[in-house]
Amino acid sequence: MSSQEIFAVILAGGSGTRFWPASRRLRPKQLLPLGPSAPQSLIAATVDRLRGLVDEEHVLISTGAHLVEQTQKELPGLKPVAYLAEPQAKNTAPCIAWAAAAIARKNPDAIVCVLPSDQHAQDAAGFVTTLKEAARSAATGSITTIGIVPTRPETGYGYIEKGESLSDSSFRVRRFEEKPDLPKAEQFCASGNYLWNAGIFVFRARDMLSAVEQHLPKVHGALGRLQAAWDSAEVSDEEAVAAFFESCDSISIDYGVMEKRSDLSVVPGDFGWSDLGSWESAWELSERDQQGNAAPLGTILVDAKNNLVEDLTTQTSKKVIALVGVEDLCVVETDDALLVMPRSQSQEVRTVVERLKESKRDNLI
Amino acid sequence: MSSQEIFAVILAGGSGTRFWPASRRLRPKQLLPLGPSAPQSLIAATVDRLRGLVDEEHVLISTGAHLVEQTQKELPGLKPVAYLAEPQAKNTAPCIAWAAAAIARKNPDAIVCVLPSDQHAQDAAGFVTTLKEAARSAATGSITTIGIVPTRPETGYGYIEKGESLSDSSFRVRRFEEKPDLPKAEQFCASGNYLWNAGIFVFRARDMLSAVEQHLPKVHGALGRLQAAWDSAEVSDEEAVAAFFESCDSISIDYGVMEKRSDLSVVPGDFGWSDLGSWESAWELSERDQQGNAAPLGTILVDAKNNLVEDLTTQTSKKVIALVGVEDLCVVETDDALLVMPRSQSQEVRTVVERLKESKRDNLI
Repeated sequence: MSSQEIFAVILAGGSGTRFWPASRRLRPKQLLPLGPSAPQSLIAATVDRLRGLVDEEHVLISTGAHLVEQTQKELPGLKPVAYLAEPQAKNTAPCIAWAAAAIARKNPDAIVCVLPSDQHAQDAAGFVTTLKEAARSAATGSITTIGIVPTRPETGYGYIEKGESLSDSSFRVRRFEEKPDLPKAEQFCASGNYLWNAGIFVFRARDMLSAVEQHLPKVHGALGRLQAAWDSAEVSDEEAVAAFFESCDSISIDYGVMEKRSDLSVVPGDFGWSDLGSWESAWELSERDQQGNAAPLGTILVDAKNNLVEDLTTQTSKKVIALVGVEDLCVVETDDALLVMPRSQSQEVRTVVERLKESKRDNLI
Repeated sequence: MSSQEIFAVILAGGSGTRFWPASRRLRPKQLLPLGPSAPQSLIAATVDRLRGLVDEEHVLISTGAHLVEQTQKELPGLKPVAYLAEPQAKNTAPCIAWAAAAIARKNPDAIVCVLPSDQHAQDAAGFVTTLKEAARSAATGSITTIGIVPTRPETGYGYIEKGESLSDSSFRVRRFEEKPDLPKAEQFCASGNYLWNAGIFVFRARDMLSAVEQHLPKVHGALGRLQAAWDSAEVSDEEAVAAFFESCDSISIDYGVMEKRSDLSVVPGDFGWSDLGSWESAWELSERDQQGNAAPLGTILVDAKNNLVEDLTTQTSKKVIALVGVEDLCVVETDDALLVMPRSQSQEVRTVVERLKESKRDNLI
């Protein structure tokens, strides 16, 4: 790899409901201390993992304008200029294009790593090694994605089929596959040719701008007007960004760019990755006692097995939580809500959020 | 029944742990709004049930000295003179003897109804009718107990065997039976001759004093000194009571008096009685929705069946509680504790209390 500058763009716009009652509109998943990152938030752990690869002043946080303040609290080391505040949610393609343009203004050859803000990597060193390999691939001019080596026939993720080998660590991307059904997922795992799509992309800024020009002409046009505004003194930065997002359609980078190209590369990664998709995966990743309970110190556990207890209340004096004779439960408490649910039904949390919406209890969402 | 005065002595000294985390040393079961009595406490419901039979100024509350203040809060209608404050717990015989002596001083022919403070009677009118029948029996000079017509072969209660019929509503007591094993309990139920011992006793004050003289000479001697103190101005009431309890052994009225007599009467009662012995029975008695959940309004229930949710927190702004996909659970929340447990394991709450004792978390007991 040459001595190219490396930037990280951390996508922190999510508004997940799968971690209710911990996650809320103004406190989405990446701001929570879930799983092994606790007491650090997931986004703080994400930034920490980049140390040694990306200088702190090269870290950009792309988030919703309404989330900037809360996000800054979790990342006290970053300066306000690190924030790309989306005035409206238009999925990932517009904000990645915007980030690429902003970085290209400084250095069109800079390597850009686009990373979700809410994932976990057990092996942080392995993560950095893989990212370095992806950066090396991107430096050759190929937009590169990291594909996670599957550990189970998961039906909740998209897959990437590997093509020909390009180097000792990278492959051509043959095809992106939607979330498969179980037989297909089992086949993918058995074949050894498929990787999970983790939403991690690495590219030179100039290459992403070319790809946007080719596949997303509307975004490219809006980007041109944004760049013109940057070069003039007539429009404020805020107005220019607002106009840019107003002009863009809502579209993902996967659908808008990646799936349309035949020259992508993929670097397989095996670093204990998890997307921390639900309370179930928070339990899986948490430290557990001999009975399989992940619970705060002081919890009273009588014949209790394989439970997840999360006390996310903010009072200094904590309640004692006692679990008697229960198994495989999630018990999650916040200042204004308590959730009790079998771990296996973690996906059903969204039903609770729907009920709250229906009954207009917006303060709880 | 003649126009005899009727007094009620309500035994409110218990320090049950079976309703932890709601029940505590300073907030025992009778002070809680459990089951259908809510939002009234059990002791307030007990006093209310006596309306029309016992004048309010004839209601005496026998409780531990440390519980008087909390109890008075639950019974704002009663004057401070209504309280018999036990300086130390010596089981039921000493305090019933003391109450009988205090009432006999005013009227030795007065009828005294001794009642636990923490029971439930679904049919309040039926309860009063039965108590009137017991008072009629007691007026003949026979210490009378109310026996509950069993509805199931319960192994958790003592039983009373009926003997010969004495009137249209009363029988001689043939024998008191300890808590039986299941085959014996089934046999008791099938025979039709056995009743549950609910700890409700009715007698003339003078008859109890005679019985104490005959069976509990030590208590009787102490009572003599107490009465002498009442008649003199040399000892304060408080000192005299302290000396009385100091002199008495700890002994129950059942063991000390009832089981030793052959002239007792029993009046069968069938008024939806429950001793509310655990969270399980609180659920049984509570109003439930079509899915069998007893939960506060506003609880979010998704595929949840037959659960008990008790929110006994004192904040004005309540948490939302969401139960997803769980069955047969108790979820009990107070300001400083949360309990999650299958209803069927309600007896195991005492294990939690033991653990708290072991770890010296006395503020939670």
